[in-house]
Amino acid sequence: MSFSPLVRQLMDALRVLPGVGQKTAQRMALHLLERNRPGGIQLAQTLLQAMERVGYCQRCQTLSEEPTCAQCRNAQRDDSLLCIVQSPMDVFAIEQTGYQGRYFVLHGHLSPLDGIGPEDIGLPQLLTRAQEPGVREVILATNPTVEGEATAHYIAQQLSTLPLVLSRIAHGVPLGGELELVDGGTLAHALAGRRPLISPAN
Amino acid sequence: MSFSPLVRQLMDALRVLPGVGQKTAQRMALHLLERNRPGGIQLAQTLLQAMERVGYCQRCQTLSEEPTCAQCRNAQRDDSLLCIVQSPMDVFAIEQTGYQGRYFVLHGHLSPLDGIGPEDIGLPQLLTRAQEPGVREVILATNPTVEGEATAHYIAQQLSTLPLVLSRIAHGVPLGGELELVDGGTLAHALAGRRPLISPAN
Ligand SMILES: [Zn+2]
Ligand SMILES: [Zn+2]
Repeated sequence: MSFSPLVRQLMDALRVLPGVGQKTAQRMALHLLERNRPGGIQLAQTLLQAMERVGYCQRCQTLSEEPTCAQCRNAQRDDSLLCIVQSPMDVFAIEQTGYQGRYFVLHGHLSPLDGIGPEDIGLPQLLTRAQEPGVREVILATNPTVEGEATAHYIAQQLSTLPLVLSRIAHGVPLGGELELVDGGTLAHALAGRRPLISPAN
Repeated sequence: MSFSPLVRQLMDALRVLPGVGQKTAQRMALHLLERNRPGGIQLAQTLLQAMERVGYCQRCQTLSEEPTCAQCRNAQRDDSLLCIVQSPMDVFAIEQTGYQGRYFVLHGHLSPLDGIGPEDIGLPQLLTRAQEPGVREVILATNPTVEGEATAHYIAQQLSTLPLVLSRIAHGVPLGGELELVDGGTLAHALAGRRPLISPAN
């Protein structure tokens, strides 16, 4: 009962943030209440707007408050390359390497034991997207984890009948790690050293 | 340009939280957007309410959305003890020791070089509060830092003409530290071992 009900509610609400335990939530709440109310109000308003208005790009499935995202709308990018990643954070990581192609964001990986199947991560949309004119190579940049590898393998099978080069980013990225934690240089190297999985028969 | 404008605004807004840098803000924003929108909306609404409605208790100056806080309204507590602390977090810390008296929260310490004088931390209100019927002992529990000691010393001088026992929490608390980081056992010991600074002449 040391804090008033509304202050306690704020401390509890802050714990939805990843990595924020009781002590950190207390410090955050008191910092905003005692030292930065305008910043706290700004955060509340932006958070509410973002939660209500940010959806998914119709074309690549990344987070976007517009129907299509800036990368998809940018006519300067290379339509022949389509890079498949597991999350919007991975788009951010790969953009740092200077990659200029297109993206498709899966939002997760296949996980049959958890009931997460191809439809749940948007694979039907990917199949359609990969058949659009201009696409020549699909780069599988899922995480170098067991689940990411299995997802890449499944996608490769699904796309194997299409006249596309399928490639996987090179294992310059450390096995068992998460793509977004890899430094830009390593990631650029892995991207440059991608190797074909399946080439068109012709 | 990897994230949409509203997603970037959210990442920027999250950096008002203490200890949250760019990478952590990105993870927090994507976590809420991808995995917990109800939690994000709840946080936004609670944050806005708290920033707009939480004020200060008229009696002890701690954070409270009511005119007087629960500790001040609780008729069971011991009116004879008045414990002076620097922040609402210190009230939380001292409550863990089982202390049953009253509090007065300064919101900082005297800092003449920064232009923070007695009025800025509520010392006139403290002088009034300390003269209310029933108060017999004022416990100075400011931080065991140079500034906290100087503030305690100044308050002791101001209250020295009143018929009160003035005490300082014992230096079981480590010098140079912050009160809220001290474990409950040490703090309970320090509170029990408090020593008189000035006793009434009678
Ligand atoms: Zn897009
Ligand atoms: Zn109060």
